[in-house]
Amino acid sequence: LISKLPRVGTTIFTRMSGLAQAHNALNLSQGFPDFSPPEGLAQALGEHAMRGHNQYAPMAGLPRLREAIAGQLALHRNVAVDADTEITVVPGATESIFCAITAVVTPGDEVIVLDPVYDSYEPAVELAGGRTVHVPLRAGSFDIDWVKVEKAITKRTKLFMLNSPHNPCGSAVSAKDLDILGELAQKHGFLVCSDEVYEHLVYDGRKHCSVLQHPVLRSRSFAHFSFGKTLSVTGWKTGYCVAPPELTRELRKVHQYVAFVAVTPVQHALADFLETQPDYPSSLAGDYQRRRDLFITALSGSRFSWTPAAGSYFQLLDYSDISDEADTELSERWTRELGVASIPVSVFYETPPEQRVLRFCFAKSDEVLLEAAERLCAI
Amino acid sequence: LISKLPRVGTTIFTRMSGLAQAHNALNLSQGFPDFSPPEGLAQALGEHAMRGHNQYAPMAGLPRLREAIAGQLALHRNVAVDADTEITVVPGATESIFCAITAVVTPGDEVIVLDPVYDSYEPAVELAGGRTVHVPLRAGSFDIDWVKVEKAITKRTKLFMLNSPHNPCGSAVSAKDLDILGELAQKHGFLVCSDEVYEHLVYDGRKHCSVLQHPVLRSRSFAHFSFGKTLSVTGWKTGYCVAPPELTRELRKVHQYVAFVAVTPVQHALADFLETQPDYPSSLAGDYQRRRDLFITALSGSRFSWTPAAGSYFQLLDYSDISDEADTELSERWTRELGVASIPVSVFYETPPEQRVLRFCFAKSDEVLLEAAERLCAI
Ligand SMILES: CSCCC(=O)C(=O)O
Ligand SMILES: CSCCC(=O)C(=O)O
Repeated sequence: LISKLPRVGTTIFTRMSGLAQAHNALNLSQGFPDFSPPEGLAQALGEHAMRGHNQYAPMAGLPRLREAIAGQLALHRNVAVDADTEITVVPGATESIFCAITAVVTPGDEVIVLDPVYDSYEPAVELAGGRTVHVPLRAGSFDIDWVKVEKAITKRTKLFMLNSPHNPCGSAVSAKDLDILGELAQKHGFLVCSDEVYEHLVYDGRKHCSVLQHPVLRSRSFAHFSFGKTLSVTGWKTGYCVAPPELTRELRKVHQYVAFVAVTPVQHALADFLETQPDYPSSLAGDYQRRRDLFITALSGSRFSWTPAAGSYFQLLDYSDISDEADTELSERWTRELGVASIPVSVFYETPPEQRVLRFCFAKSDEVLLEAAERLCAI
Repeated sequence: LISKLPRVGTTIFTRMSGLAQAHNALNLSQGFPDFSPPEGLAQALGEHAMRGHNQYAPMAGLPRLREAIAGQLALHRNVAVDADTEITVVPGATESIFCAITAVVTPGDEVIVLDPVYDSYEPAVELAGGRTVHVPLRAGSFDIDWVKVEKAITKRTKLFMLNSPHNPCGSAVSAKDLDILGELAQKHGFLVCSDEVYEHLVYDGRKHCSVLQHPVLRSRSFAHFSFGKTLSVTGWKTGYCVAPPELTRELRKVHQYVAFVAVTPVQHALADFLETQPDYPSSLAGDYQRRRDLFITALSGSRFSWTPAAGSYFQLLDYSDISDEADTELSERWTRELGVASIPVSVFYETPPEQRVLRFCFAKSDEVLLEAAERLCAI
């Protein structure tokens, strides 16, 4: 059998989490919280299972959950979205991103991605017969270089992959960025796939800029969101995709044959939560900013350098002053020897730049963050 | 946007369940039980969520669940399977079937499917750039016509889609069928994708014949199984795929970017159940055979004709003596007018034959089955 994804191994997140476990290391590699989901959520899951909500939900998601999502979008983003024709509940944003790419990319199409790029996008494009065109983010700031993006656009450009707050970099786009993207998309006629799973995690007074709030982008984007991230239940694998009806229609054609539907008792539990605590996501930025600051303050005596993450729950640390080892080797060595697992950033590039950076997840308890920082200071 | 699946609408199951709900009909269309899952399962889900099992499981599934699955295969199928390298836990068999097809089918490849064919296979083949070659099952018996199959094989044949017990027909393959398939697969060098989600539902003293039990097929097949079907929790969307290590490796490359992982508390609850009640699936055939017999006995005064389902929880009813309406129209009309929803079988064919058949799901409570039969007798 000839592999269709010859360059793909096991995803870096699985490998580093496995290594962390094998060496009993503090796991700041894969992105997931080590603390409990909000009060009431886990209990609601059990209650719905006991009440018999255990058979297939409708393919696009429970109507009550889609209504609650529309409510969230009105409350937090001030946008009006139709629950029936524009929202699809999915078994995780990974699935809806895969489905969106699969629904629109045809053989020969080009898809622009920004490096470093989240690892699931490119295989999806490849499997659809498309070709990714890699545009690096600006070194250091990890902002989008729109001049480079415009140069990368061709007649075959079908889709642009946006990711903000950015994984792995923690950068975030501005309203200005969206204006430029909107102009380019309109001028050149491409669509946008916007991964906004860390939407509620933006810091230092910033506001998340969603494609849903931008009139031009709204009409030509798939926007992907994650309850796993927002409600600290990554293992519940449930998210949603918002797109105009004509895009949603194509997304669902693929989704119904890829996974069919998300888990029913989970959908009910999420709906309960959103109905009773609609404002909960507003508390996230403050909470995670505190964790970020706890972590970087504890690192102040170290030889790392950094720019505080603008968003997401990932902090990049530059180790140029400590070692000139490759990040892929260093992340493994430190997992074994220091007992702190991280993610090397070079694996997310087509052509990794001269840069020595590791990604640390700060969705962790204070003790874990302080202990990890202490070990990192000791280097 | 030009649709990549121009011939695909909303899946028939979603449409008929929606129509059933709109008309408050007895829903014998989409396949799911209307009774409770086995004792303890729902409670275990709540307990694991409360105990904090809410973050990502390992990509291939919880080790303890994969071990329990290996135990099931040893107990019920007398086969030895390696939990690490041959079992992948997935968010439903639909997902692993999609991933298996996507992992092996390349543009120009041919995939043999038997008509009537479950509706998710062909879109997956199309999206992979392959071409389905349709071979009809024998009229009436819905057995496999191996002479026709052999004629359909070409140098481009990459994959054969097997489905037993069969959905929508309720037929089941024999050990002889597997021998012939094994010979053909070896001779012509194709792989097999075996949908065995109704494995425990075989009646009248038959035994399920799994590709895992066949030495040749074992080494060239993906076999797909469903906890939703076996444990009456279709809404939990969890199943598993068994394949030799080299096929499993390619499956996981796709799976990790399609859905990444199945739901963690669900995986724990399933593991608990399999560990404590490993023999539960043995009770299923008797229970469902009773339901099938209740349904068809209650139909004995009707003008339908049928062969009792050999397996699955679907009974086909031939209505030639009642109406010459198309099955697609009749299923909708009876949903509205009789309050009994079913699935038209013609939609699963490339070229529907001259046949008037509807599919009824008998995974329903006695009262529902009897009431449905009474309404069907009144026609
Ligand atoms: C899909 S598992 C990894 C979770 C994640 O998105 C990350 O760690 O970046
Ligand atoms: C995927 S929803 C339909 C369930 C099913 O397999 C069927 O009704 O045949």
